[in-house]
Amino acid sequence: DVRIINMKELSFLEIIKNTLTDSSHLGDDCAFLKDLNIYVTQDTLVENVHFSLYTTTPYLLGRKSIAVNLSDLAAALSTPKYVSISISIPKTLDETFIKEFYKGVNDICNEFDVKVIGGDITSSDIVVVSVCAIGYKDSSFFAKRSNAKKDYCVILAGNHGSSSAGLYALSNFLYAPQALIDAHLNPVPRITESKIISKILDSDIATMDTSDGLVDALFKIAEASKHSIEIDINKIPVEKELIDFSLNNEKDYKDFVLWGGEDFGLVLCVPEDLYQNLDEKYFTCIGRVLNKDFNPSVVVRDGQNSKTITKSIFCKKTYNHFKD
Amino acid sequence: DVRIINMKELSFLEIIKNTLTDSSHLGDDCAFLKDLNIYVTQDTLVENVHFSLYTTTPYLLGRKSIAVNLSDLAAALSTPKYVSISISIPKTLDETFIKEFYKGVNDICNEFDVKVIGGDITSSDIVVVSVCAIGYKDSSFFAKRSNAKKDYCVILAGNHGSSSAGLYALSNFLYAPQALIDAHLNPVPRITESKIISKILDSDIATMDTSDGLVDALFKIAEASKHSIEIDINKIPVEKELIDFSLNNEKDYKDFVLWGGEDFGLVLCVPEDLYQNLDEKYFTCIGRVLNKDFNPSVVVRDGQNSKTITKSIFCKKTYNHFKD
Repeated sequence: DVRIINMKELSFLEIIKNTLTDSSHLGDDCAFLKDLNIYVTQDTLVENVHFSLYTTTPYLLGRKSIAVNLSDLAAALSTPKYVSISISIPKTLDETFIKEFYKGVNDICNEFDVKVIGGDITSSDIVVVSVCAIGYKDSSFFAKRSNAKKDYCVILAGNHGSSSAGLYALSNFLYAPQALIDAHLNPVPRITESKIISKILDSDIATMDTSDGLVDALFKIAEASKHSIEIDINKIPVEKELIDFSLNNEKDYKDFVLWGGEDFGLVLCVPEDLYQNLDEKYFTCIGRVLNKDFNPSVVVRDGQNSKTITKSIFCKKTYNHFKD
Repeated sequence: DVRIINMKELSFLEIIKNTLTDSSHLGDDCAFLKDLNIYVTQDTLVENVHFSLYTTTPYLLGRKSIAVNLSDLAAALSTPKYVSISISIPKTLDETFIKEFYKGVNDICNEFDVKVIGGDITSSDIVVVSVCAIGYKDSSFFAKRSNAKKDYCVILAGNHGSSSAGLYALSNFLYAPQALIDAHLNPVPRITESKIISKILDSDIATMDTSDGLVDALFKIAEASKHSIEIDINKIPVEKELIDFSLNNEKDYKDFVLWGGEDFGLVLCVPEDLYQNLDEKYFTCIGRVLNKDFNPSVVVRDGQNSKTITKSIFCKKTYNHFKD
């Protein structure tokens, strides 16, 4: 469901760019406001599209609404400072919902030293949460999709695949280990890792969060940078629980790893020497940026095999995922 | 409908304040971020609560989504600079909707020199638009609800009552002059008036926009400032079309003027000498701030008569309006 919206979002983005007199701020997940030296991002969660009240709690919804926005700031290597929250709820929901939602908001904001500055509450037939987050730019260098260069290391903060496996379990009423459920309902934005990188940065780099999947992030970086990217799927960190769950349910865990969304990992393309200074506890090198390419692709190596994901395969695959 | 939400919003606001570790930024319609010297506000429009696709167009919805946020910045005497827009739409709506919506966004943003910096598009069962707006603080003084002082002039930018009469006509399938329909579907944020005030300001003043009605704004200023307020209803500028429409439909136009929302007028309490410097073309003195009062009320004079709106009358009246 999220996937077809992504495909539509692409054509919508073109329409928006063609309609606006000045669309220079659009393109990355965060807008950088030069005069204020801040990053701004806004993400919305809609009931029955991004979450179900049958599988999450108001507390976890509060946390995740903030987390998805902090993840965008992390991808810009920005230090999150403020959030504004607009929540629309049906009249059937009461004070308890708002109280629990804001407990979740408050907890995650305290964990990352972020202040709630306002927003509004309105009535609606479904729950909709829209958060706008503001972060400082602490480094003098830029992190954006278009900065990948030949021979840069492709590195990943966080393991991958657990969130979509958790969603698959919840949607199909399957038993799943708590780690997978947590990965989906209570994701951790990679602020810690973003700050580590920010401190040692000595050039512009390419970054993106993996909110819409790992291949999606790699493909968007490849397209914006006009360089193909190669990764080794066996180097991607995965949780043991993901492999067990996939085996038990006759699923290929590599599908979750490559195509599943909402892990909110951080993928970066950085110079080799920067990577050498990073702690393996937080970051894994999963591949390399290849040659300049005006029709860039993502090459996925798996032992002796390798698969080249071109634009048409990427679009078809994401479309197929929607039809599933 | 909007009214009961307001009443509920009050108790929700208390819950939020009690839940957050730091709620110091909440209270006014805009948050002021001291370290960045900016104001931030976020307002959401929900289909079938704030608008109906049967009575508005995507173009006008785009304009109004921005206008309601610029109105909040105008009330803070802030110069609007940036907007982020999150729109959720059903899959049945197509590119034309997005294109027209963004044409409206683009036009009003160009009129007020505001840049669109981003946002997102998601799927939803109903249309929901959430806009976050950022403005500069240009004056060294503050405009907030709590700054009203004894003998200050109560001034109003804009006429009042037309928007709610337009809504009444649209909701009841009545013929109404275009001026009333426009007032409701295409409101003008009082940025021009806000800039005029900002330039000549030499002390803190009390301001609010009248998005939830004139008495509502006056009452909130009275409560925050702990001073009662007196206005003369016959001094409030009204459009001739409002009086004609009310007569033709056996309604009291004064109800629209006092209690109707969404005119997005600007109400200010300012020192007498500041008022003397203002152009009558833009501003009308409609009353005066009375004595300090820990149970403040709004006194509405009408010729020989006067009515004192206490907190309990205010709550009852707004509740009754919901029941209508």
